[in-house]
Amino acid sequence: MTYDHVAGRRFLAISGGVGGAKLALGLYHALPPEDLCIIANIGDDFEHLGLYICPDFDTLLYTLSGVANPVQGWGRRDETWTFMQVLRQIGDDAWFLLGDGDLALHVERTRRLHRGEGLSAIMADITRRMGVGCTLLPASDAPLRTFLDTSEGRLDFQTYFVRERCIPVATGIAFESIGAVQPHPEILAGLSDPALAGIILCPSNPFLSIDPILAVPGLRDALRQSPAPVIAVSPVIAGKAVKGPTAKLMAELGLEVSAASVARHYADFVDLFVLDETDAALRHDIDVPCVTAQTLMTTLEDRVALARHVCQLAQAMGRNG
Amino acid sequence: MTYDHVAGRRFLAISGGVGGAKLALGLYHALPPEDLCIIANIGDDFEHLGLYICPDFDTLLYTLSGVANPVQGWGRRDETWTFMQVLRQIGDDAWFLLGDGDLALHVERTRRLHRGEGLSAIMADITRRMGVGCTLLPASDAPLRTFLDTSEGRLDFQTYFVRERCIPVATGIAFESIGAVQPHPEILAGLSDPALAGIILCPSNPFLSIDPILAVPGLRDALRQSPAPVIAVSPVIAGKAVKGPTAKLMAELGLEVSAASVARHYADFVDLFVLDETDAALRHDIDVPCVTAQTLMTTLEDRVALARHVCQLAQAMGRNG
Repeated sequence: MTYDHVAGRRFLAISGGVGGAKLALGLYHALPPEDLCIIANIGDDFEHLGLYICPDFDTLLYTLSGVANPVQGWGRRDETWTFMQVLRQIGDDAWFLLGDGDLALHVERTRRLHRGEGLSAIMADITRRMGVGCTLLPASDAPLRTFLDTSEGRLDFQTYFVRERCIPVATGIAFESIGAVQPHPEILAGLSDPALAGIILCPSNPFLSIDPILAVPGLRDALRQSPAPVIAVSPVIAGKAVKGPTAKLMAELGLEVSAASVARHYADFVDLFVLDETDAALRHDIDVPCVTAQTLMTTLEDRVALARHVCQLAQAMGRNG
Repeated sequence: MTYDHVAGRRFLAISGGVGGAKLALGLYHALPPEDLCIIANIGDDFEHLGLYICPDFDTLLYTLSGVANPVQGWGRRDETWTFMQVLRQIGDDAWFLLGDGDLALHVERTRRLHRGEGLSAIMADITRRMGVGCTLLPASDAPLRTFLDTSEGRLDFQTYFVRERCIPVATGIAFESIGAVQPHPEILAGLSDPALAGIILCPSNPFLSIDPILAVPGLRDALRQSPAPVIAVSPVIAGKAVKGPTAKLMAELGLEVSAASVARHYADFVDLFVLDETDAALRHDIDVPCVTAQTLMTTLEDRVALARHVCQLAQAMGRNG
């Protein structure tokens, strides 16, 4: 499937970390940077050792700037670990791994936040300095945090995900905001932009990566009201998540572990759902319009091909295509 | 000269960074750790990138724990610099070099300070974790900062020392306290301890490393009133400082660059001044009682020998020897 981009037709992507970042990278290669805006999950953000850490935003930033660690799936390539070695000797709080180069981002961001700058302004500057040309936006400048109700009580996301390695059985998910959380004005402007060609939900965990973005007051409504088509790519293929705790979590929450289940979860605002080809049979279980594609992204070529495919679908659907 | 330590006879050393740390290390080898307390200069402490950095204390800590970088004269050996590499790319504030391992100390200290713990309590815990058995105390838990009046205006110490490389011509030195600065209670208790055998001023810069310690209200008086002999080792040998800006600074302040000048500076509270053998002729210019010794410390053996010598002098002079 070929896609011929019309300059000025903008795309807005919504993404969590690793899985979503694969399609985000494909979009970054498929589109001129000025026509791409990616909204990052902030629900995983937390303060650790006095540093403000934004795991999903940073994964997107590292992925798009070409410094992501392809083996770990998080952090930077060519990383050193001297900080952690010393921290283990002198402190007790060494459960969250911070590479030496990664640390520069957290220290610099925290310094500027304490000086009173907004998160999105700081990250826009750093994104530019790292040579990334598209717009990367945190869903909001104000904190909104993901918590899991589990067999071990209510845990903040990083305690559940990193410290407890997703072992506690989840019974529910909650989002807690600190102060007045609202979408970044650029997101609302982008969603109602007549030049918007499509909104793409990247294949991230719907509950832990996409839902916290949609939980920012006003964002879900703005998605529903956007004139552009909303296309979601399934993070579940053949009843399994490509990576991470999506499948385990869905099972614990009493949901069928399938792409159909994800489609139902997005039904109120999605215009088109992209299933993997191996899940073609599920089309009959899904009320949302859906298509199949090769959604497993192993190589960069896979990422770019899927990105082009999704942009092409939006072009075919939308008034702005 | 031999020195036989009598258990329970305590020594208190007063030290800045590099130069003083050499004798401090000698004392650490010459004495049982429980009988040694070292008071560190806090005038160089500063906040940088949101981190609380204590250069002189840390040099003492790294030196005594065996991880100091012998080539640089500051920081850790086997250090990596990934943090600085990334910081230079994403930020503008990269003039103060922070090694990746060094950073762990600053992050952990800052975290605990923000939690409300006192500087000395935090550093006592970290000192213990790093395997150092003697007592290392910052001169005060409250900040006292060294400023230099220069041809470029008033500069804080690190701006003068690191950023401007001591190039601006100094016209004066000022110490500014933030809040109520008082000596750590353990210092006052130590100075009046009947078991105190000697107080040793290590060969650090008198104006930038020792004076800020003496500027902590009450400390200079406590030194004067201590029953133990106060012995100072000259940081100036043959009209030159072994390292650092001492000589340049003394000249700019209109002082003769000589050990005699340093002795005069300490005259009101020092009982014995230790000159280098090469400065023996200066004895006649100095009103304070003085002796000569080999004070240039090149090897560890030099450090231990000078430490033993100084302890022996205190033993010979003091009621508690």
